[in-house]
Amino acid sequence: MFITAMTLLFSVQVSKDHPRYKSLVIREMMSERVREGIVSQTGLIAHGRGEAFDYLLGEVTTPPALAAERAATACLLQAGRPVISVNGNTAALCAKDIVLLSKATGAKIEVNLFHRTEERADLVCTFMEAAGAQHVLGRNPDALLSGITSDRAKCSKEGIFSADAVLVPLEDGDRAEALVKAGKKVIVVDLNPLSRSARAATITIVDEVTRAIPNMLAMVPKLSRERERRSILAGFDNSQNLKASLDILCARLRAIASEGKG
Amino acid sequence: MFITAMTLLFSVQVSKDHPRYKSLVIREMMSERVREGIVSQTGLIAHGRGEAFDYLLGEVTTPPALAAERAATACLLQAGRPVISVNGNTAALCAKDIVLLSKATGAKIEVNLFHRTEERADLVCTFMEAAGAQHVLGRNPDALLSGITSDRAKCSKEGIFSADAVLVPLEDGDRAEALVKAGKKVIVVDLNPLSRSARAATITIVDEVTRAIPNMLAMVPKLSRERERRSILAGFDNSQNLKASLDILCARLRAIASEGKG
Repeated sequence: MFITAMTLLFSVQVSKDHPRYKSLVIREMMSERVREGIVSQTGLIAHGRGEAFDYLLGEVTTPPALAAERAATACLLQAGRPVISVNGNTAALCAKDIVLLSKATGAKIEVNLFHRTEERADLVCTFMEAAGAQHVLGRNPDALLSGITSDRAKCSKEGIFSADAVLVPLEDGDRAEALVKAGKKVIVVDLNPLSRSARAATITIVDEVTRAIPNMLAMVPKLSRERERRSILAGFDNSQNLKASLDILCARLRAIASEGKG
Repeated sequence: MFITAMTLLFSVQVSKDHPRYKSLVIREMMSERVREGIVSQTGLIAHGRGEAFDYLLGEVTTPPALAAERAATACLLQAGRPVISVNGNTAALCAKDIVLLSKATGAKIEVNLFHRTEERADLVCTFMEAAGAQHVLGRNPDALLSGITSDRAKCSKEGIFSADAVLVPLEDGDRAEALVKAGKKVIVVDLNPLSRSARAATITIVDEVTRAIPNMLAMVPKLSRERERRSILAGFDNSQNLKASLDILCARLRAIASEGKG
């Protein structure tokens, strides 16, 4: 859409034998989504921030992440009015899997952007619809979430405003805190186990969103019994889970460091 | 220069009481440099990666970083043909300080880009000249650095190709390794003490570039005696220094984690 001189300006030169090939290819894809207006430029920086933590975590789903994904899936299935909040980065990274998860759990999809303009909100909604979403909220917000200023407070009465559980991948700390204060169960996907979002959330998934969402999707059929969902949720301790992710991060730091000396 | 619809598309909404205010303001500035063509979009992601490590390091110059900056300054002053290699991110973040350091140490400035096009190389050269640089190399590379493929091998005979010491802030691992193999003393500024650049370099400064360059600049007048410079360089052990940065990183992780519980 916004095909400007920039498209020609940045040529792709990533060789397949580069040790960070996959991450560099995702960078190029994200960069393409910026040109289309889906991802904001500062969203690219936020993506890089996540990349660093993913690198430290070994770019795999760790056991505590898997446990959080199971609890998160149970939480969405238990909820009466679950909503998945989608921003530019989430749409760019995993629109199709978000749509599938929304259908499998009965969660509504609502687009909510850190850098909101009517035009960009519409673009991201259309992008989600192109990925198969059927009733995307976020074009015409008619309610305000209290506790945050700025346009990020805008939401839909039918969606986030009245939701009892919200999955907010890649969310800013302010908004995660405001959602918790509004009495909702808040599930965040955040590679930094120390972030404000990670600490504020009800359930924090310390995993890359393109691994987390398919994992959750695969768990849905296994969580059909309410008794099991209740038992998973009762047994899940978010602060313990965060501590386990942090332990892995520290151990990995040490391991990479000693590899480097070998 | 490339003022497109995007400029209007992303409005700045950063409140001063946001805990990451400074980092968010720098994000907006970097994003502006993308619109001008100085920073590449994937450069924004790389910046985010650095941000994550800076956050883990406490966003301060640590004692090992300061020691590396002293050794790096001594190294540039001892060199016969020192060069500072500038990419888009370095230009955007600290063009003026790079120019001052170049004048104080007698180092030439050469623009070298990961995503090189003639047009962008020219833009970044012009940007450095606008910041006060007088003889910027990089518009017409006439030599190739062996050991790397792609356009990044391109360099100037008069500059990087014949340099004995090169300061390469924010450099990719491939190129840092190739410069070392070419027999040069290589100084990198890299917030990730575990990166390939960090491990390959002769001197690795684990610090944010906007703190590192002014620190080095302030050290120049104190390093006027050759005997002292030699002694600093003889006493500097890069792998020990990297280990010290890593220890700080791990300790900070633990500290932030326990703060979070308080």
